[in-house]
Amino acid sequence: MADTRPGEFELIRTYFAPLASDPGSVGLTDDAAVFSPRSGYDLVLTKDVLATGVHYFAEDPPQAIAAKALRVNLSDIAAKGATPRGYLLGLALPADWTADWLERFCAGLADDQVTYDVRLFGGDTIRSGNGLQVSITAIGEVPSGRAVRRSGAKSGDVLFVSGTIGDAAAGLKARLDDSFCRERSLNEAEEQHVLNRYLLPRPRTCLAELICRRASAAMDISDGLFADSEHMARVSGAGLEIDLAKIPVSDALKRLKTSAGSDYLSFLNGGDDYEILAAVPAADAVRFSQEAASAGCPVAEIGRVTKDAGQVNLMDGGQQVAFQSGDGFRHF
Amino acid sequence: MADTRPGEFELIRTYFAPLASDPGSVGLTDDAAVFSPRSGYDLVLTKDVLATGVHYFAEDPPQAIAAKALRVNLSDIAAKGATPRGYLLGLALPADWTADWLERFCAGLADDQVTYDVRLFGGDTIRSGNGLQVSITAIGEVPSGRAVRRSGAKSGDVLFVSGTIGDAAAGLKARLDDSFCRERSLNEAEEQHVLNRYLLPRPRTCLAELICRRASAAMDISDGLFADSEHMARVSGAGLEIDLAKIPVSDALKRLKTSAGSDYLSFLNGGDDYEILAAVPAADAVRFSQEAASAGCPVAEIGRVTKDAGQVNLMDGGQQVAFQSGDGFRHF
Repeated sequence: MADTRPGEFELIRTYFAPLASDPGSVGLTDDAAVFSPRSGYDLVLTKDVLATGVHYFAEDPPQAIAAKALRVNLSDIAAKGATPRGYLLGLALPADWTADWLERFCAGLADDQVTYDVRLFGGDTIRSGNGLQVSITAIGEVPSGRAVRRSGAKSGDVLFVSGTIGDAAAGLKARLDDSFCRERSLNEAEEQHVLNRYLLPRPRTCLAELICRRASAAMDISDGLFADSEHMARVSGAGLEIDLAKIPVSDALKRLKTSAGSDYLSFLNGGDDYEILAAVPAADAVRFSQEAASAGCPVAEIGRVTKDAGQVNLMDGGQQVAFQSGDGFRHF
Repeated sequence: MADTRPGEFELIRTYFAPLASDPGSVGLTDDAAVFSPRSGYDLVLTKDVLATGVHYFAEDPPQAIAAKALRVNLSDIAAKGATPRGYLLGLALPADWTADWLERFCAGLADDQVTYDVRLFGGDTIRSGNGLQVSITAIGEVPSGRAVRRSGAKSGDVLFVSGTIGDAAAGLKARLDDSFCRERSLNEAEEQHVLNRYLLPRPRTCLAELICRRASAAMDISDGLFADSEHMARVSGAGLEIDLAKIPVSDALKRLKTSAGSDYLSFLNGGDDYEILAAVPAADAVRFSQEAASAGCPVAEIGRVTKDAGQVNLMDGGQQVAFQSGDGFRHF
């Protein structure tokens, strides 16, 4: 039977060109996009590749897969204190792709382009021998010389995280194990909350300007809070001390803490949070916290930066808690 | 048995960090790279995704797979008149990847980084459910407002191509059919020539400055000479008239023309040439040709731009030759 699905050029014209409203993309009629950052700004570039079975499930709504692929990249941009501007999309479509699926995938991108004020700059579509893969390169702008690194944490800084931690890891567990929520006494709202957090990250673009202005170091939490804290500690040549009781968690996570099972720490370090971990000079900490709340994105103080180069210490009631950061989620 | 292969961070440290010599990449210790284009320059961004069985064979030398993935992107950059600066690498590794394979893959990148004066800015490595996929976003610079588009061809312009056309398509045929070269009387040197042209594109970065200075329109030839000419004709709202006898070909292609088989045109339109198709104002045509030769990258005049909007006419001895541009290679 003849393949009645759109070919590459029709696909570009129908689905992708409407997303490419930046004049430098010339409606995707060229092989390359032209882009000029504003004068006085550096570009921040990041690239994440997402694959079926690693980052999402094949049966996830295509809108959500598209949104997740874009958002994990925007999360990296925001954590550097940069404002996202646009992205390039590499799409490897499996043999059984349908026009309906692709339309919904692009609808997910279109919605997020409005939400996060970004545009499609260009990209490439190929057929994939097997599952769908989505490769996105996102581009943001930050005032020249002001990109915030993981490596800038200094002894005495106060440590903050945005939002709540551990929800996405619990959501993944709930996806993989039908009985999980029942066994752990999560109610329906809590179950929905953790499932949503896994399905759809919320990149903290609203914190970007504040991170740029106030943070010594910042990164987004994708591998897990403790695993990523170790990354920050190592490249900063400093230590991080985290107070377990201060880690902000949702009602769902509170339920997991009290219900049977000793895996609470593994959820906190389960990754896919896409919250921001930031070290802020002590003198600015109160203002940082107030300004984050004003920006609609509350942050919680979870500890401080110490001199113990490369060390992460997790404390609970003054006692050190053992944890294995290697339990963080491995996307590779 | 325990997996003794390097984990993600060791892999970054051992294989990728040495490629990331740009200070904005901070040795790949961060999630994002910071990059500042020079003042007075626009960025040119392009992204190509390559997959096993579509763009290369699984058994190809890893150095060559890496080089091809990088070079097809550099080819797009050069065709816009831009100078390549760097790239981001998205690598989906199959389950059975080995450290030796990856080392050779990175050696291929390292060699090309020297050849083309580019640096790795960042990227992402994931495990692939199945075959290897390589997604590269390349970034180049062009003087502000001077990027050369496909869409600028004007009636009266002279049409040029670089290098020779059809070799890579013949090389692919030779890869797929062991008896092809013997049946078509290609000698050993000719066989090696076409195989090499398929395996390793030669992006025409040496023409970039000249394209920027003299061309009205340009693009690289990846889908096939006639197919890509149609793209240029369509978006330029002009016609292209190509003289079959003037299309520059190698000795191998001359042999294919005279040996049995009527598929000569299909090789010329077979794609994967990564040569440049350029329209140049008639007044500049002689200088363009001379300067290209001086730059070490000869170009051949193959025809002219006409008023027949969207039309490509292939001529042979004054007669129009029928061809099907849809025979160009489909990477999707």
